[in-house]
Amino acid sequence: MKIGRVAGTVVSTICSPAYERQRLLLCDLLGEDLRPTGEYTIAVDSVYAGAGETVLIIDEGNSARQVTGIPEAPIRAVVVGS
Amino acid sequence: MKIGRVAGTVVSTICSPAYERQRLLLCDLLGEDLRPTGEYTIAVDSVYAGAGETVLIIDEGNSARQVTGIPEAPIRAVVVGS
Amino acid sequence: MKIGRVAGTVVSTICSPAYERQRLLLCDLLGEDLRPTGEYTIAVDSVYAGAGETVLIIDEGNSARQVTGIPEAPIRAVVVGS
Amino acid sequence: MKIGRVAGTVVSTICSPAYERQRLLLCDLLGEDLRPTGEYTIAVDSVYAGAGETVLIIDEGNSARQVTGIPEAPIRAVVVGS
Amino acid sequence: MKIGRVAGTVVSTICSPAYERQRLLLCDLLGEDLRPTGEYTIAVDSVYAGAGETVLIIDEGNSARQVTGIPEAPIRAVVVGS
Repeated sequence: MKIGRVAGTVVSTICSPAYERQRLLLCDLLGEDLRPTGEYTIAVDSVYAGAGETVLIIDEGNSARQVTGIPEAPIRAVVVGS
Repeated sequence: MKIGRVAGTVVSTICSPAYERQRLLLCDLLGEDLRPTGEYTIAVDSVYAGAGETVLIIDEGNSARQVTGIPEAPIRAVVVGS
Repeated sequence: MKIGRVAGTVVSTICSPAYERQRLLLCDLLGEDLRPTGEYTIAVDSVYAGAGETVLIIDEGNSARQVTGIPEAPIRAVVVGS
Repeated sequence: MKIGRVAGTVVSTICSPAYERQRLLLCDLLGEDLRPTGEYTIAVDSVYAGAGETVLIIDEGNSARQVTGIPEAPIRAVVVGS
Repeated sequence: MKIGRVAGTVVSTICSPAYERQRLLLCDLLGEDLRPTGEYTIAVDSVYAGAGETVLIIDEGNSARQVTGIPEAPIRAVVVGS
């Protein structure tokens, strides 16, 4: 898992149906010193995190499917803590 | 997921049968500022994205197989939103 | 597997229920010379490692689920030796 | 998927039985401009690619097993187009 | 797959039971020119490779489980040729 900070939500005009009920968060990845590393990921939310919040992100598909409870979800990264 | 921009389609003269009906997109990966990072990926299309469009790309095999609906597809990255 | 050093434990005020009984370790990744590389990961503990200890970390979801014995655990990295 | 160029074949004097009937290709990874990035991978061949050929490489275990048709093959990268 | 060179074996005083009968090799990753890249991995041995030997390493959990023949092994990287 990595530490991230929520930069905002992502809205896509055309997208696969699987994402229609998912809240997608654009997250800056942080170093141990909680400063941005310059990298980011787009993760599905599971804890109702808001912009600016420091969060825990797991970037593994099977974990993301467990956390969201949707075994066939096409997701890879998920915010699991804040 | 990452943000990308479609640079064009990829055509291969000889390829595995699994790719014969897939549209392959060469996508530049973008940073949060929507500027190219210098990296790219080749992803299967699922939203009929055109050249120059900004897209969402998921780079995980099981997700790609879910999105395309082909459980045995040998694909890893897929364009899921634009 | 990689070599790491435990920097501390991670506590999250709001988190997915799957993590409630897991001890999460913030680990600095080390090079072969046992000096920090500047990268880190957050791994589930399986050997009761303490802060400052040099540990072995495996960063693969299916392995992490085997080590913890929880087939549906949404975890990716686990400390497996010290 | 990534673009690569076949640099040669890999022959191993002692290897796991699973590789005995596989042709292993040493491939330079290329950028979008088709110039070497300095990185490489060793991939199983599925299209009879020759040295110097530009190829498409997929680097995901489950895809590689689908392309080769051997569900239990211990392979991760495969050349799927040229 | 990548090319590596065995730097030595890894011994852990406390470790998960799954590793008790596995020989763990610390391997320097090499470039195509067979010079060290500065990166390393710790891989399970499957070909009785010795220190200083040039080896083939596959870094994917399902492959590693196939090569070792232990479906539930928590391993990710394995030395498959030398």
